Formats: sequence, C-alpha cells, structure tokens
Amino acid sequence: MSSPRAVALSGGVGGAKLALGLDRVLSPGELTVVANTGDDFEHLGLHISPDIDTLLYTLAARANLDTGWGRAGESWSFMSALAELGQPVWFRLGDKDLAAHVLRTHRLRQGSSLSQVTRELAGHYGLATAVLPMSDDVVRTRVRTDAGWLDFQNYFVEQQCSPAVHELCYVGADAANPAPGVTSALHARGLEVICICPSNPYLSIDPILAVAGIRCALEQAAAPIIAVSPIVGGRALKGPTARIMSELGHRNSVVSIALHYRDVIDGLVIDEVDRVYARSIEKLGIEVHVAQTIMKSLEDRCSLAAQVLEFAAQLRGPRKEQRSHVGVGTS
Amino acid sequence: MSSPRAVALSGGVGGAKLALGLDRVLSPGELTVVANTGDDFEHLGLHISPDIDTLLYTLAARANLDTGWGRAGESWSFMSALAELGQPVWFRLGDKDLAAHVLRTHRLRQGSSLSQVTRELAGHYGLATAVLPMSDDVVRTRVRTDAGWLDFQNYFVEQQCSPAVHELCYVGADAANPAPGVTSALHARGLEVICICPSNPYLSIDPILAVAGIRCALEQAAAPIIAVSPIVGGRALKGPTARIMSELGHRNSVVSIALHYRDVIDGLVIDEVDRVYARSIEKLGIEVHVAQTIMKSLEDRCSLAAQVLEFAAQLRGPRKEQRSHVGVGTS
Repeated sequence: MSSPRAVALSGGVGGAKLALGLDRVLSPGELTVVANTGDDFEHLGLHISPDIDTLLYTLAARANLDTGWGRAGESWSFMSALAELGQPVWFRLGDKDLAAHVLRTHRLRQGSSLSQVTRELAGHYGLATAVLPMSDDVVRTRVRTDAGWLDFQNYFVEQQCSPAVHELCYVGADAANPAPGVTSALHARGLEVICICPSNPYLSIDPILAVAGIRCALEQAAAPIIAVSPIVGGRALKGPTARIMSELGHRNSVVSIALHYRDVIDGLVIDEVDRVYARSIEKLGIEVHVAQTIMKSLEDRCSLAAQVLEFAAQLRGPRKEQRSHVGVGTS
Repeated sequence: MSSPRAVALSGGVGGAKLALGLDRVLSPGELTVVANTGDDFEHLGLHISPDIDTLLYTLAARANLDTGWGRAGESWSFMSALAELGQPVWFRLGDKDLAAHVLRTHRLRQGSSLSQVTRELAGHYGLATAVLPMSDDVVRTRVRTDAGWLDFQNYFVEQQCSPAVHELCYVGADAANPAPGVTSALHARGLEVICICPSNPYLSIDPILAVAGIRCALEQAAAPIIAVSPIVGGRALKGPTARIMSELGHRNSVVSIALHYRDVIDGLVIDEVDRVYARSIEKLGIEVHVAQTIMKSLEDRCSLAAQVLEFAAQLRGPRKEQRSHVGVGTS
C-alpha cells in the first residue's frame, strides 16, 4: 500500500458518496478508507459487512444509486426462495450481493481476517483505493431503545429505526485492535487530511472512534481532521441521524455535530444553508468551511472532496494545538 | 413418520423420476426415499447435497425438467457476481437453489443433522413423502481415473466425466451409520417393496449399499427388493452409466445390471427392448418384469411406479429364499 494523501472514516451510503469523490479527485492509491464494522452481523450463517460492501460497490461503480445500498441491477430470486423456506426476509440479500457474503464467510472460516478478505474483494473489483475495516476484531453496535437493547440490524433494518434510541454501545470496541494498516495510514508521512465522512455519527462514525487504538492514533495524527456534517438545515440527508439526535436530546443542527466531534476534529464542513452557525462553531475552536454539501451527482461528490482537501491545506499551516482530545461522548 | 408401503433408493435425476411416480401412485406418507449423499460436497463453504435437492425439487414440482438438476425458473446472478470475484464457476449454483444451500449449511453449523435439515426443507415444500439421507455421517464418493483419484464433483461436473474410470470408493461408508429412519423404513411392517431406482449404479446406488447398516438391513428385509434398470437397449438414458460400465470392463446390457445387483435384488424391471435378455437374467435367480421404462411424461413415471408395485406383489408370494447377499462389487 502506498502512502495515502487522505484517509476517510466512513459508514455506508452517505459516507461512501464522499469517499467516491475523494477517490476520483486523488490519484490511484492516494486514498485509504477506514470502514465501520459495528453493523456487521451474522445472518443465516453468512458474515455480512454492510458498510464495507457499500464502500466497495460504490468505489467499483457497482452500487445501486437508487436504494443507496446493495448492487445495481440486482435480482432477488434468492430472497423469494428463502421466503418459501420460511426464513426471515427482513434483511434483503440480493443475488449478486450474495457472492460477496458467501466468499467472505468462506474465507473467514478458512482463517482469513476481515482485512484480508476485504483486500481480496477490492482486488477483484480492481480498486486502487484501500478499504480497511476499522478492526479485524468483532465490534458490534447495540442500541438501547424503548424496546430494550437491540442488535444494530434488528433496530436499523428489522424495526426500521422505529423504537426511540436512548443509548448506544459498541460491544468489543475497547478490546479491539485497529485493523492492519489503519494506524500507519493515519500517521502516514505526507498525509494531508483525515476526513470524517458525512455518515451517521452515532451509528457509523462513533464505532470507529470507539476503537481505542484508532482514537489514540487520531489524537496523535499530524494531519488535520475534518468532518463533513451529515446534518444540513437541521435535517439528515439520509437515514435516521436527525431523529436519533433528537431522541438523544440534542438539537438538530450542525452545532450539535460540532459539539459531538469537538474533541476529535480541527475543522468542520457545513452546508451553505447553515452558514449562520459558522461563528458558533468557530467559538468551539473548530475551523469552518462552508460548501454545497448535498451530493447528488458525481460532480457534487468530486467538488466536495476537492474542497475538503483544500480546506485541509489551509488548516495544515495554522494547525491548532489546543485539541483537547478527551473523548467523544456517544450521547 | 407413518409406516411406508414403499422405500426407494435413489440418486438424482433418473431416480427422482421414478420416485415422483411412486409418490403420485401411493397415498401421502406411503413412500420413503433414501437418497445418496456420496456426491455431497463443500463448495465455497456451502454444504451441497445434489441428490437430496434434486429429489426435493422433483417431489415439490420445482425441478428444472430441461436440465434434470436445479430448479425451474432459475436465475444466475450469483454466478455472474462470483465470476467477477474470480471464484470457480464450474459448479453452477442458481440463485433460488442457493437458499437451500445457505439454510442447510447454517443449520449444520448450528448442530442439526443432515436428516433434520432435510426434514425441515421437505416440510417447507409441504412434502408428504419422507426423503432421508442415506446417512448423517460423511460419505464421499471418489473415483480413480486416468487422471488419478478425483473427488466426485471434480470428476462429474468439473471434468464432465471425461477421464476414464477404473475404480470407485465411498470414503467413510464403512463407518457411517444409516440415518435415523432408514433401517426402520426398510423393516417396516407392511412394507411392500424396496425399489432401487434407475440411477447410476456406481455413482448413486452403490454409495447407499456401501453403508454397512443399510446393506445389512436390506439383507434382512422382508419386502422384495426390485431394481429398475438404468440401461435400456445397451445405453443409459441419462448420464455416464453406460460409459463407466464400459470403462470398468462390463458389457453395456441389462444383464450387467442384473449381475451387478444380483446379491441384493429379487427382481429386475427391464425395458421392452431388452425382453430378449429376460431368460439370462432369470437364470441368475432374479425375477424379471418387462415394461416401458423410459419416463418422458408424468404418466410414464406413474405407470412404471404402478408396475413396480404390482411386480412386488407377485414376488411377495413366492419370495425367494436363495438370495445370497454376499456383497455388491463395485466393479
């Protein structure tokens, strides 16, 4: 792996959009993506890594752009046969998508690590960008809700995020090691930016930050750490970010995102519609860049990625020393 | 399980045709099918049981009647995605078919036996006929060929039966126990016939006969044992039976089938075109019934099944005591 110019921390859909932009504006090999694995799970004996797959499919131009997950041109014969066998169908496994799950499960059972399998998959897709799981160890996001503690996928997919969230935990994160390559990427000479993609902070980014070794590497990283707000105009572009924010007692605003990440980031990219909050965020000691952050086209993705790199270049000079790094709360 | 009137020993395609006929002419619950599992294998970490699945699909009216294996209306997205991932595609796994493999593999890993999984699958298909694996223990057919010893599926599917066969062995058969229900079915009060379906004797039936407990149960069975010849007019209707027969040094004729099964069967059903061999076969101490054995339609399957039952009724009276039962050769 060559030394990256940018490392992106990302969950699935929203984060993958910006990761794709970075992949396109950088030269081959200059981007490393660290993927959330807190929502990985075993289903019907298959090891499913939703965020890794969304990232791989997105970078490999195989993603379903309508659903935001799964593959383009997917078919669903497997699911219909599975229903016939009385099996649960709340988690939709596409026929093409299954190839990755079957191969991953097979390799893990043969003794490969999740990193190794991910590298193998990425290799078959011909990706130049490295996609690394945050950890090869098992970390599982659990959600305390009105309906009690739920495993992530039961909350997120089966129950469609309907029970109100009160607390989250990332089981195994304390003991998990960063996957091979993660720490060295974060400390790579010449690294220009560590970008926290506009993924759900609670469900997609916090599990990554909860891995002690990653947290520590971020604290010591020389490159500026920039988050792109997943909240625009008080709303999430996709998924339950705003809703969970409210349920956890926070205002739905980019300021809450700034507060959430204040101990980690040097800069925050906010949308033009949120320009009014720039001062409040800067008062927290976080630099702000205002941009068009809604990524509809590939051009939007590339433009935002380019601005993240540019913003980072500005921050590398007057790099703040006062980052307190005292830990990100999960509520 | 109610007490069966008929037990069929069967491999895949050819045997399943007659099993379907028996299923239709008998009342629900009156048929038990014992399936070959010698060609089961692990592929990409999935436990594949080709003959069990062909039997289940056939009895459940889900079989692909054109190919003789797999499911009707199958799609192949999984295979195309698998090829993209650089994985072997010589064994074709249909998208619908995969549901059975994934569920079976999952259940076996959870600790279920192959019998239990097969019963579960059959239950979801609403089958009244019991389909039993010959054994829950691992038995694997291997083939010594011009290209050396090959695992069954490598010989049969990957190499399309092209290397000449010199010897077969059924690894694990000596130590394997009959699956629950097999022995009791063979000894059931009121059992009218044990039918060896017109499957490949070497690849599909001999593995079943190689399970010591099944062999022993057949020797002690009160019901007449009737085979239906898979060779008609010196040729196999399907698959490599005739070819292997030649390679093993036998004449391609129903007489060779009679010689092969002589220590096991009381009667042999041969095709009208082979009527001329009836006397030679009877001289071996085997009763002969001549029938139209080529099963093109469902009507053909039912007609042949009805004749097997009728033939058995004739044999139950003057049941031969001189069956020698000294072991079936595999060559």
